[in-house]
Amino acid sequence: QYFVDVDDIVAEKIVVSKESLRGTHFRRAGPRQKVYFESDEVHACIVTCGGLCPGLNTMIREIVCGLYHMYGVTGVLGIEVRRIKRFLCSKHNPLTPKVINDIHKRGGTIFETSRGGHDTSKIVDSIQDRGINQEIRRPGLKVAVVGIPKTIDNDIPVIDKPFGFDTAVEEAQRAISAAHVESESTENGIGVVKQMGRHSGFIAMYATLASRDVDCCLIPESPFYLEGPGGLFEYIEKRLNENGHMVIVVAEGAGQELLSGNTCTMDNIDASGNKQLQDVGFWISQKIKDHFSKKQKLTINLKYIDPTYMICAVPSNASDNVYCTLLAHSAIHGAMAGYTGFTVGPVNGKHSCIPFQRITERQNKVVITDRMWARCLSSTNQPSFFSPKQLFAKIGDEKHGDNHVEDLAIK
Amino acid sequence: QYFVDVDDIVAEKIVVSKESLRGTHFRRAGPRQKVYFESDEVHACIVTCGGLCPGLNTMIREIVCGLYHMYGVTGVLGIEVRRIKRFLCSKHNPLTPKVINDIHKRGGTIFETSRGGHDTSKIVDSIQDRGINQEIRRPGLKVAVVGIPKTIDNDIPVIDKPFGFDTAVEEAQRAISAAHVESESTENGIGVVKQMGRHSGFIAMYATLASRDVDCCLIPESPFYLEGPGGLFEYIEKRLNENGHMVIVVAEGAGQELLSGNTCTMDNIDASGNKQLQDVGFWISQKIKDHFSKKQKLTINLKYIDPTYMICAVPSNASDNVYCTLLAHSAIHGAMAGYTGFTVGPVNGKHSCIPFQRITERQNKVVITDRMWARCLSSTNQPSFFSPKQLFAKIGDEKHGDNHVEDLAIK
Amino acid sequence: QYFVDVDDIVAEKIVVSKESLRGTHFRRAGPRQKVYFESDEVHACIVTCGGLCPGLNTMIREIVCGLYHMYGVTGVLGIEVRRIKRFLCSKHNPLTPKVINDIHKRGGTIFETSRGGHDTSKIVDSIQDRGINQEIRRPGLKVAVVGIPKTIDNDIPVIDKPFGFDTAVEEAQRAISAAHVESESTENGIGVVKQMGRHSGFIAMYATLASRDVDCCLIPESPFYLEGPGGLFEYIEKRLNENGHMVIVVAEGAGQELLSGNTCTMDNIDASGNKQLQDVGFWISQKIKDHFSKKQKLTINLKYIDPTYMICAVPSNASDNVYCTLLAHSAIHGAMAGYTGFTVGPVNGKHSCIPFQRITERQNKVVITDRMWARCLSSTNQPSFFSPKQLFAKIGDEKHGDNHVEDLAIK
Amino acid sequence: QYFVDVDDIVAEKIVVSKESLRGTHFRRAGPRQKVYFESDEVHACIVTCGGLCPGLNTMIREIVCGLYHMYGVTGVLGIEVRRIKRFLCSKHNPLTPKVINDIHKRGGTIFETSRGGHDTSKIVDSIQDRGINQEIRRPGLKVAVVGIPKTIDNDIPVIDKPFGFDTAVEEAQRAISAAHVESESTENGIGVVKQMGRHSGFIAMYATLASRDVDCCLIPESPFYLEGPGGLFEYIEKRLNENGHMVIVVAEGAGQELLSGNTCTMDNIDASGNKQLQDVGFWISQKIKDHFSKKQKLTINLKYIDPTYMICAVPSNASDNVYCTLLAHSAIHGAMAGYTGFTVGPVNGKHSCIPFQRITERQNKVVITDRMWARCLSSTNQPSFFSPKQLFAKIGDEKHGDNHVEDLAIK
Repeated sequence: QYFVDVDDIVAEKIVVSKESLRGTHFRRAGPRQKVYFESDEVHACIVTCGGLCPGLNTMIREIVCGLYHMYGVTGVLGIEVRRIKRFLCSKHNPLTPKVINDIHKRGGTIFETSRGGHDTSKIVDSIQDRGINQEIRRPGLKVAVVGIPKTIDNDIPVIDKPFGFDTAVEEAQRAISAAHVESESTENGIGVVKQMGRHSGFIAMYATLASRDVDCCLIPESPFYLEGPGGLFEYIEKRLNENGHMVIVVAEGAGQELLSGNTCTMDNIDASGNKQLQDVGFWISQKIKDHFSKKQKLTINLKYIDPTYMICAVPSNASDNVYCTLLAHSAIHGAMAGYTGFTVGPVNGKHSCIPFQRITERQNKVVITDRMWARCLSSTNQPSFFSPKQLFAKIGDEKHGDNHVEDLAIK
Repeated sequence: QYFVDVDDIVAEKIVVSKESLRGTHFRRAGPRQKVYFESDEVHACIVTCGGLCPGLNTMIREIVCGLYHMYGVTGVLGIEVRRIKRFLCSKHNPLTPKVINDIHKRGGTIFETSRGGHDTSKIVDSIQDRGINQEIRRPGLKVAVVGIPKTIDNDIPVIDKPFGFDTAVEEAQRAISAAHVESESTENGIGVVKQMGRHSGFIAMYATLASRDVDCCLIPESPFYLEGPGGLFEYIEKRLNENGHMVIVVAEGAGQELLSGNTCTMDNIDASGNKQLQDVGFWISQKIKDHFSKKQKLTINLKYIDPTYMICAVPSNASDNVYCTLLAHSAIHGAMAGYTGFTVGPVNGKHSCIPFQRITERQNKVVITDRMWARCLSSTNQPSFFSPKQLFAKIGDEKHGDNHVEDLAIK
Repeated sequence: QYFVDVDDIVAEKIVVSKESLRGTHFRRAGPRQKVYFESDEVHACIVTCGGLCPGLNTMIREIVCGLYHMYGVTGVLGIEVRRIKRFLCSKHNPLTPKVINDIHKRGGTIFETSRGGHDTSKIVDSIQDRGINQEIRRPGLKVAVVGIPKTIDNDIPVIDKPFGFDTAVEEAQRAISAAHVESESTENGIGVVKQMGRHSGFIAMYATLASRDVDCCLIPESPFYLEGPGGLFEYIEKRLNENGHMVIVVAEGAGQELLSGNTCTMDNIDASGNKQLQDVGFWISQKIKDHFSKKQKLTINLKYIDPTYMICAVPSNASDNVYCTLLAHSAIHGAMAGYTGFTVGPVNGKHSCIPFQRITERQNKVVITDRMWARCLSSTNQPSFFSPKQLFAKIGDEKHGDNHVEDLAIK
Repeated sequence: QYFVDVDDIVAEKIVVSKESLRGTHFRRAGPRQKVYFESDEVHACIVTCGGLCPGLNTMIREIVCGLYHMYGVTGVLGIEVRRIKRFLCSKHNPLTPKVINDIHKRGGTIFETSRGGHDTSKIVDSIQDRGINQEIRRPGLKVAVVGIPKTIDNDIPVIDKPFGFDTAVEEAQRAISAAHVESESTENGIGVVKQMGRHSGFIAMYATLASRDVDCCLIPESPFYLEGPGGLFEYIEKRLNENGHMVIVVAEGAGQELLSGNTCTMDNIDASGNKQLQDVGFWISQKIKDHFSKKQKLTINLKYIDPTYMICAVPSNASDNVYCTLLAHSAIHGAMAGYTGFTVGPVNGKHSCIPFQRITERQNKVVITDRMWARCLSSTNQPSFFSPKQLFAKIGDEKHGDNHVEDLAIK
């Protein structure tokens, strides 16, 4: 599976006509000659959900400007979850290109965002207040709902990558660089850096590849163990003996099966319905300290860095800025053409409209038998933490699965 | 052409098997089961040609590390054009992963690079000194030549984008931001920013889209004129009256047909064989100043920024760092598999091996009848500088041409 | 003069009481127990003059917030030079802490600023429109005029340094770094970087010291010559032979006596009354190119970088942000205490009120016989371009002059 | 004490001659005409102790280059604490200007540094190995020991500020900015940022002043309490009601008296002899969460950021780069003049030589009855957490103390 088949070929043109369909295909995003809505009847609402992500403000700006400039839509409202009174107010002060002209230069979102289910009802309440809600249930309703996936972790399938990902990797690299400096400036220095990634280790993997300062990258997709031969402790000791210092990157969701034994309350669910994870970075730092202080004679200097919130709060970089424009335009064109219940994003580099269920039915994960992860391992020299037998079994499993990730990987 | 056909679809899988061939296809890049060269017989040489570009050092690092880690090749030499004596010396001190471990954090290249044809003979001399040259001409020769396109301008066709491009746009955006601040802080402030782009305006276009501070973006692909109705001067005056300030981005090669009339020596060819262009940023700044000081009563404050060399000299960002790894690996795998005379790069997101002639037979250009340029115009509100008739003719022309750029555009 | 006298001592306390006066002393800045103005009768106006400088917005913010929070003054107006109508408007919309809360994060100035004398009359007109002007001339008038020196070049005497200087040096260093990368990546690479400094070479000198990548730093205070023994061309040739590349930093006002011979129109005066200088960076680049292309066999690769406008437009850094607060508070306290016709700034680290005439009677200049310049020369290894005899004469001259600069220098 | 006396004056010249001595004075730093050591007999050793700090590498570079260029000293060794074998090796490979030419562009230190007393003996061992130690005890010994205070916290008295402080505040401001973005993007968002400062809150205070995004700044010098009227919880509730979000900055050593009650093991001493502090940022975050989740109905979103190691690891900025040069030169000149047992640094802006005991006899602290802290309070609007009576008592205490800090404060 690691090797490319000698006859594999890549097509230069990939937008195909209908009759040649094979495999899954999606409708191409873009402006349609026939527009479903009249500009002056459009009431657009924007809401941002979940945690922060670089590019939210750019996205808001581009939706407002795109609707205004491309379709002459002026009635755009932003839904601030908290202050209902402000929404009502904002009905009279809709978002205009002038008002939101510079917001893409700021991190965060000009609306309040928050994890958590109860907000949905607030959103509905807020919409109801405007006399829009009643209509939504009516059959033949002229409403288009478009989602732009905000998942900095890259755990959404089908689309090539989420917005904000490039910016996040850039910032993640800065934290790794700091950990590298700290570790190489002390005797047996170990820098531990937590990276976002509840279920998917993409940020950890890409930041590791980008920085090249990492000696071990731990992700949710690749199980590991601490003690004994071939375990993490053994590797750390070997690395310190060779190099005198090392950097460990650990994704948020890595090694959760190891932590679960240690705590009584793993069934916590946060307000967004996500299982609350224990802080693996803190946990692993403590484990390493304990191991080397108690069981070994080696005096180590461990520094733990958690850059999560600093990453989420930066403004999007140039590449994400352009990317946000494209996503916003795809969303606008799709909605104005009358589609609903879809999300947008590039599939193999072509912007497409994708039905919601296709991106919620599974999660995008790092495929650890594929080349990108192999590259990552090769750059860190870390052990695979697998017996060959386990790895073989894993390959068997994944052969029947989806290999979209690998396709993304070599982009 | 602007509109997407309602039946256009995008395939989720684009690596196809041989029998379904239609259109141009390329061999997929990646490791092959069968390797052509023996590791210990490989003598690899790296040379960097042309001007600086973010990512050169990363590329060198990845080729050295990739050959070493993936194929056990230790004999890698860097060809420094200038100091022949140093090369000979470096024969005994080949590039090793340890030596080049941190170079990706620095801008520039650890080798000297220089535009210009006479260097080729130096390179050959240098190779000859090592007893390699004689063999190159012999039939059945075991030599693989791989090129990784170093074209920050994105003027190479077929591949999705060149390395260093994202970093360049990021830095270009900083210069535009400065011009924006300068212009809005003075009475009738005009900021003029030159961007790289001898024949292709991609950097100018993307930086314009990323920054959203630009009122006019001038590129080689889209002719413009200064005087009279619909001309640049009229637009400037209009914009200053409306807004009080404006930013103009001008690509290196824009409007060369206007400048040529004004000078006697346009046939200068530089050492690389490129026609020497007049500094269009300087020229246009002077023209604007003259127009408004002499012909008009409007007192303007024009600031001209040329960030070219500052852009070329920055280290590559995280996204380009990862991208360089992938390109380097594709090149290594291809060469070790015995291919020669090819370049590497993603085609529709899939890394491929592409014969040299396919990327030299034409130039990648911004297609001004496509959506990306339309987005750019929409973000600046600038006039098209075209009569509808001209535009219609242009569309006709391009219909028969290649539309790969549009495909890239919506990435 | 270079050596410290063995008995020189430094006092730990430097705020002295009146009877011990020796030398020049200034009134200490700070809040007074007795305030001259009633808060509700205060009408404050802020105007920014001259070119941009990092920290202008921070200064505006701090004056508004300081007046509001410390003295309860709410009636603060910003004078925008251009749009008279807007001023009138702003009478009804005075600057409040809420409105200007975030402006310190942006470069430039929220007011328009412009070099040039005719603006003064506009300012007066604008004030007159508000019925304030008549009162200014009346004797016993309750008006306080405070100036905060905005001179990024550091050419104002007495005060330790101007605001924005640290930020400017930081940015200047970035341009030098780019020039360094460019020069060392080509055969006989020469990077030329222009720095601000019409009459004083402080930015060039400090950026040279901060970056340590500079081989030659040319400032207005230190004459130099191009040709012949001990000249710049000779030094360049020597340096290229030794190192293969070099970086030259040239302050805006350096070598103007050399340029003047070459042009006919040196008596240009710009709108601010400043003699218009020729672009010395462009001129010296051309001279070097000509010399080596025509007279020598040496092929050089020269890259010229002019970062001026990019430096002026950046937001102030943390250190300048705090500094602006202190200057603004000193200005506010002084004005509210009833002083007028003064400027504020630290003198030997103590914030003081300084009568206008003390900072306009001479210019602060780099004293080239002092230690800071000696440090700069030592870091570049450049020749002094002086015969010992000339230098001796120069020391004699300056012995009778002011040595404040040296004091600043070792700060 | 808050007010400036109306007759306070500031001297323009502060280097005084011996006979006018009053108060504490120090010997001025700088080159002396008479040098005590012969260049070729000098064996210089550099060791870096304690945690990382921006500027360490710059300092090493400047000492090596300064000794070489100013005094012709070539025998400079760096003492790496860990690898004794490497030291011996480095005897044959002394530090030269060429070797350390670019190290100032990297964070950290090229030597290993480590907190802790046992290292001292290693250092001595290492020196002994070189046959230097025997001589140190001999009377009339020609040895000069100079220390450059590495205290990013600014807790060393007498000197104006330590190197690295400006850079640290710049980076600290970035973390605050992220916390601000996070907090204002959620409902009842609270950003908590820990800053360095075991005993002195200078970094917290300056970063608060520089960023202006902070609603509460807690430092070791200013006690506070959580519950009840006038306490922190009350203030948080008020602020959230008014603004909807807030940022709290807490220095490492703040509120330790509150934490001590909660834990059993407060007498931990780390390897450097510093009392180990509990993580106050983590503690206060937990306390706030508990308070509002259990005792109140208010749902808050708290994000905790600890940027400590990212701050320590950045390269020094331009201003610190120049500052390091000056400190290094003062140290070199002093040592070469034969002084020993002293440290160097600016006192009121004049670089001086200061006997060790003067900087170890007390700690520099934020004087909370002085103006700089008043400015900080005014920018945050936080309560003083003091009853007027307590404050009055405090002022009485400090009147008899040292007010150097206030002098620094207005710099």
